[in-house]
Amino acid sequence: MLSSLSQKIQKRYQIEFKKPDLLEQAFTHSSYVNEHRHLGLQDNERLEFLGDAALDLVISEYLYQLYPQMPEGKLTKMRAAIVCEDSLAKFAKECQFDQFIKLGKGEENSNGRQRASLLCDLFEAFLGALYLDQGLPALEKFIGQVIFPKIQAGMFLDEVDHKTALQEILQKNGDVKIEYQLTKEEGPAHAREFFVNVVVRGKVIGTGSGKSKKIAEQQAAAQAIRKLTPSK
Amino acid sequence: MLSSLSQKIQKRYQIEFKKPDLLEQAFTHSSYVNEHRHLGLQDNERLEFLGDAALDLVISEYLYQLYPQMPEGKLTKMRAAIVCEDSLAKFAKECQFDQFIKLGKGEENSNGRQRASLLCDLFEAFLGALYLDQGLPALEKFIGQVIFPKIQAGMFLDEVDHKTALQEILQKNGDVKIEYQLTKEEGPAHAREFFVNVVVRGKVIGTGSGKSKKIAEQQAAAQAIRKLTPSK
Repeated sequence: MLSSLSQKIQKRYQIEFKKPDLLEQAFTHSSYVNEHRHLGLQDNERLEFLGDAALDLVISEYLYQLYPQMPEGKLTKMRAAIVCEDSLAKFAKECQFDQFIKLGKGEENSNGRQRASLLCDLFEAFLGALYLDQGLPALEKFIGQVIFPKIQAGMFLDEVDHKTALQEILQKNGDVKIEYQLTKEEGPAHAREFFVNVVVRGKVIGTGSGKSKKIAEQQAAAQAIRKLTPSK
Repeated sequence: MLSSLSQKIQKRYQIEFKKPDLLEQAFTHSSYVNEHRHLGLQDNERLEFLGDAALDLVISEYLYQLYPQMPEGKLTKMRAAIVCEDSLAKFAKECQFDQFIKLGKGEENSNGRQRASLLCDLFEAFLGALYLDQGLPALEKFIGQVIFPKIQAGMFLDEVDHKTALQEILQKNGDVKIEYQLTKEEGPAHAREFFVNVVVRGKVIGTGSGKSKKIAEQQAAAQAIRKLTPSK
């Protein structure tokens, strides 16, 4: 199991653990350790403690740099939306980590493999192991593959609002006029669709559509942000 | 003011900022910015956001390494005791940071310079600035001067208990018998003092005293921990 996990992580994320024991520990749930006491294994809880803190720093620095004008209160809110249990559990599933965690029988039978809190802890434990094995740059690279694109895509901006965020990015180096132009409306009244361009200095930098002008503007701003902030 | 702060930090901690603006921003409270809007200054709140996360990681890793057997729950409790407002405010005062923060008049008059929450934020903002300026190793070095010695001295172990901590350190590589030997009792009954040695493989590795055997044992364990965990 460990070797197929190693291969997957190497193939998908170009990560090769110097200490495979750390990787194995990250994928060992306490319920498994308790059911196999004779093996003298260590569970992933201490790695989770470390990974949680390492993730917080990487996300904090990324948000700090991405939104140079965003006030601390909004940064904190956005960070909380990214590092919450539900988000991290989703990332763990996207990485297919759920297939590899070693669980005790009781945990397995009670569907622990699908439980958000367990998957969130697993994701953090993996980050803790990666941090110990290879340091902060490797962690940034991995999170840059798994989480940063979602931040750029505006997945966590509902908390914040894309239009404000776009303004903050563009006005980093002085005032810029940002216009939202309605280009089209179509469909019957009960299912009307609005199309909006966001325009800066005569140039369309994003387009969006939605069931209201407001939604279309937010979508256009989100698209502009994605274009303006290339992946690391 | 900035230049005397720079000098102090350089002399005391061998830190020289590549970007002195960051240092200045860390020491600029929002009340000062609000009272001097024409200067277009930035307050220290965003740096505090970053510094908080960076501090958490440095402390987490240190505790993880220092107590290789400590369960996640205890690590979390101990980290919380270290990075709490009161502790960080004390560190800020020890570093004499309170002398250098720029405050608005209202804040100054209401004794803001002594307020724990303000000093805690200042300390975190300084860490954020240092992290941005010089990265994690510089931060570890500074925290290694200011906070690690206090962790080693057992200042935050009340939460955890020194005897358990010593056991965890010593049993890292297998079982070790730890004995606490009462060596002396002195003083009248109402002010009795107990003296205890902690002994491993016939060797005294720590001594302690106190108003009860229990306190003396805890002190002896704390001293042994200090001796076993040399400063970085």
